[in-house]
Amino acid sequence: MNTNDGLEAEQRVIDLNCDFGEGFGAYAFGQDEELLAYVSSVNIACGFHAGDPHTIREAVERSVRAGVAIGAHPGLPDRLGFGRREMAVSPEEVYDYALYQIGALDAFVRAAGGKLRHVKPHGALYHMAGRSPALAAAFVRAVRAYDPALVLYAQGGSELLSEASRQGIGSAAEIFADRTYREDGTLTPRTEPNAVHRTAEAALVQTIGIITGGHVATAGGQRVPLQGDTVCLHGDGPHAAAFAARLHQGLIAAGIGIRPPHRS
Amino acid sequence: MNTNDGLEAEQRVIDLNCDFGEGFGAYAFGQDEELLAYVSSVNIACGFHAGDPHTIREAVERSVRAGVAIGAHPGLPDRLGFGRREMAVSPEEVYDYALYQIGALDAFVRAAGGKLRHVKPHGALYHMAGRSPALAAAFVRAVRAYDPALVLYAQGGSELLSEASRQGIGSAAEIFADRTYREDGTLTPRTEPNAVHRTAEAALVQTIGIITGGHVATAGGQRVPLQGDTVCLHGDGPHAAAFAARLHQGLIAAGIGIRPPHRS
Amino acid sequence: MNTNDGLEAEQRVIDLNCDFGEGFGAYAFGQDEELLAYVSSVNIACGFHAGDPHTIREAVERSVRAGVAIGAHPGLPDRLGFGRREMAVSPEEVYDYALYQIGALDAFVRAAGGKLRHVKPHGALYHMAGRSPALAAAFVRAVRAYDPALVLYAQGGSELLSEASRQGIGSAAEIFADRTYREDGTLTPRTEPNAVHRTAEAALVQTIGIITGGHVATAGGQRVPLQGDTVCLHGDGPHAAAFAARLHQGLIAAGIGIRPPHRS
Amino acid sequence: MNTNDGLEAEQRVIDLNCDFGEGFGAYAFGQDEELLAYVSSVNIACGFHAGDPHTIREAVERSVRAGVAIGAHPGLPDRLGFGRREMAVSPEEVYDYALYQIGALDAFVRAAGGKLRHVKPHGALYHMAGRSPALAAAFVRAVRAYDPALVLYAQGGSELLSEASRQGIGSAAEIFADRTYREDGTLTPRTEPNAVHRTAEAALVQTIGIITGGHVATAGGQRVPLQGDTVCLHGDGPHAAAFAARLHQGLIAAGIGIRPPHRS
Repeated sequence: MNTNDGLEAEQRVIDLNCDFGEGFGAYAFGQDEELLAYVSSVNIACGFHAGDPHTIREAVERSVRAGVAIGAHPGLPDRLGFGRREMAVSPEEVYDYALYQIGALDAFVRAAGGKLRHVKPHGALYHMAGRSPALAAAFVRAVRAYDPALVLYAQGGSELLSEASRQGIGSAAEIFADRTYREDGTLTPRTEPNAVHRTAEAALVQTIGIITGGHVATAGGQRVPLQGDTVCLHGDGPHAAAFAARLHQGLIAAGIGIRPPHRS
Repeated sequence: MNTNDGLEAEQRVIDLNCDFGEGFGAYAFGQDEELLAYVSSVNIACGFHAGDPHTIREAVERSVRAGVAIGAHPGLPDRLGFGRREMAVSPEEVYDYALYQIGALDAFVRAAGGKLRHVKPHGALYHMAGRSPALAAAFVRAVRAYDPALVLYAQGGSELLSEASRQGIGSAAEIFADRTYREDGTLTPRTEPNAVHRTAEAALVQTIGIITGGHVATAGGQRVPLQGDTVCLHGDGPHAAAFAARLHQGLIAAGIGIRPPHRS
Repeated sequence: MNTNDGLEAEQRVIDLNCDFGEGFGAYAFGQDEELLAYVSSVNIACGFHAGDPHTIREAVERSVRAGVAIGAHPGLPDRLGFGRREMAVSPEEVYDYALYQIGALDAFVRAAGGKLRHVKPHGALYHMAGRSPALAAAFVRAVRAYDPALVLYAQGGSELLSEASRQGIGSAAEIFADRTYREDGTLTPRTEPNAVHRTAEAALVQTIGIITGGHVATAGGQRVPLQGDTVCLHGDGPHAAAFAARLHQGLIAAGIGIRPPHRS
Repeated sequence: MNTNDGLEAEQRVIDLNCDFGEGFGAYAFGQDEELLAYVSSVNIACGFHAGDPHTIREAVERSVRAGVAIGAHPGLPDRLGFGRREMAVSPEEVYDYALYQIGALDAFVRAAGGKLRHVKPHGALYHMAGRSPALAAAFVRAVRAYDPALVLYAQGGSELLSEASRQGIGSAAEIFADRTYREDGTLTPRTEPNAVHRTAEAALVQTIGIITGGHVATAGGQRVPLQGDTVCLHGDGPHAAAFAARLHQGLIAAGIGIRPPHRS
């Protein structure tokens, strides 16, 4: 995170985050609960792409009990598409949607005696605001308008991180343990054969490399610089919990502390 | 309001409230803007029965500019029915829905530099929580969990007012200018012929009578005691703005101050 | 079914039905696919309480391939509550909601080369229209307006069955294999201890008894008359598929044919 | 329309169409009812971008009484954006959304004793499927799967018209009375100053020119060939009804018949 340079001199640290509370009504989603033991921060769905007032309350209360840092995970108003489909939204709409969802989620955090720490846009909104300066600016304005102490989670190199810096709010660069990187520091698209690490070991090695060495090995074998403050873990997929457990245990074994990137 | 007894010794005062921001997407609703000149507080739709992030922002910004007190107006999750249809919701659901909507709205109030002052449930939720102790308790718990300084607007004699008192939050008893009352202090049902005052004059006379005399004349001619802290004005109907203007002017002429029922 | 008396002289027959296609977007629901092997008819969610255009297409195509009879399963417009919460809807609304959903579903049935055979209301709509003559009449009018050859599935003794008879459309009385009955022929409420049969064997015995003997044994040990044309199987719960398999096999072993209640 | 060449030897004819039934729940939209007197066909919203079961029934019943041709007007699942925002939908999703909405609407048309005649995609779907061959193919497949006798309304020169021809269903090329054209036959974008005809007279002159001469005058004064089978009238805007009345009367005065483009 760009605001705590130098604070952690003795120990390397990293945040592990996962999406949380992505059910809806009668529908469950993912392996939320099992992952809670391994992450240091959660991004809770706010009722647009997933989640509803009840799932939010449950997710918040569990997170408070587990002692993990709580973040809002606002998405596009596309429940049918789980917020994964890009939509032609204006910067003003992005601002309004983000502010609405952050406020709704925070009501439950406050009622549970917790504190909202960060915001991470979901799905298509994460990608659109990650590459559009105008949407990124709108999203960051919403975060800052709500609470300038909130930390923005976004992909390393994205417009969102640039905007957070420009508008003076804290941010955390997100890296992906189970995805491979290309020479320009971007993710290998999922359409390519070697886009995903097949084993937890490979993901662990990559993550430790980024944290301790500031570099990642591309699929082609090159070594490119990469910084990261938080690692995104996925809660869906049959091996999600086992993967998270292995990563958590491996990082600890490597002497890397796991904790949220917020000043405190 | 039950928390400002004795504060207004010299002058009779009353609050005029109206619902606000009840459009949705491309749809407008009511004569919001014109009523803003005559009311002292507004209840802004929060996105369940009506409203969306954009309409909320606009309504909040206009309300802040107009200097009226801002309240949340949460409703049932029934946009198709405009929150007017009763649904078999549990106390837990009422709590969750209220908290979600209050938080979402307040995000815009805070971003606009305003302060959320009160909460008034909408439509079917107003009526259901008005007569069910369990739903009333859940609704009041949500209001109090969010901010115990919030004032609850609810019908005089309702369970909501009893619960507000029991849980120790401020409240304002709502009266209706354009509706007639029965001997038990309840409203004449709309299915009866004389349920509604046909002229602004009759509504004005009734309102002044309640404020200054603490009584209302029933359709049958009896005089029954009735207290009120806030008068509900309707923004729909062709004569809504003219009605509000007449009531506002008539109250002022009668020496009655118009202002919100909040401590300040 | 009340329209095929006498057609099945040689063999006792029964229909086994289950709800189908109750996912939504990224969310799955129940053990749909496994049950398909054991039922003779399915009720497909139409997009109000559950389902969406994609889930409908998939459910319809699978049902056509499996050779089961396809029915529409319209519900209340309450996706958040899965259509299980009663709402104060008018007969006109029930008519409109039913007609809309039947038409939407049938478009996929026609496109898949199938034929829509029946309609069964879902959840709260099933219960509300089952006891309210006005709602029952509205629902049956929608079914008949769409296609008078459609068969209505509804609980034995319900207003829906009376209305189907009055309006001259076919119907099938639904019985429940895993629920116990009271002396008046109604289900033991789930709030009572012995509301549910704990073993597939007990459910099978009860079902065979109804089909072959026209009687059911109450929890208190009395024998009361009960007719049934179709048995409702539930797709959720951990043992849903095993239960369905046992019931299917047990009925066959008892010489009872399993097939839909439609004229053909 | 490309399927009735030669049928109308004696008289020039044109269809006037407008969108219809675009309200939702408590919300009205546009000047629907007034336009009904001047158009020969209507496109009824199907419940995704606008409309609901009740508005559909009302719109269908009015259309049947008015004797206008009824079409389905399916849109994207974006009620908040009124279906005007492009979304990254797949061809499969376009197929499913179109089929669902056509079926839902047709249920009401059948119940009202009418006949569904055409389909016109709405808003962003109209534009996206108009320029993407894959989305156009999916949309036309849905129309044809439902009923190959349906006529597709789409912009002249669009991929939708090409696909209709390729898949062998009838189509009507849509022209715009109140918009100016460029030399390549496309509409002048609304961002340019002279995109819209300011007077009904100019719109009338342009429309008559296209119908009788097969040409349109560009804003720059050039004459370019343009064919049209149906003219799109807008129901919103303060002068919508007056504009429609003038166009209708002017076309009749010019000896041009107004009627739907369907074989009958």
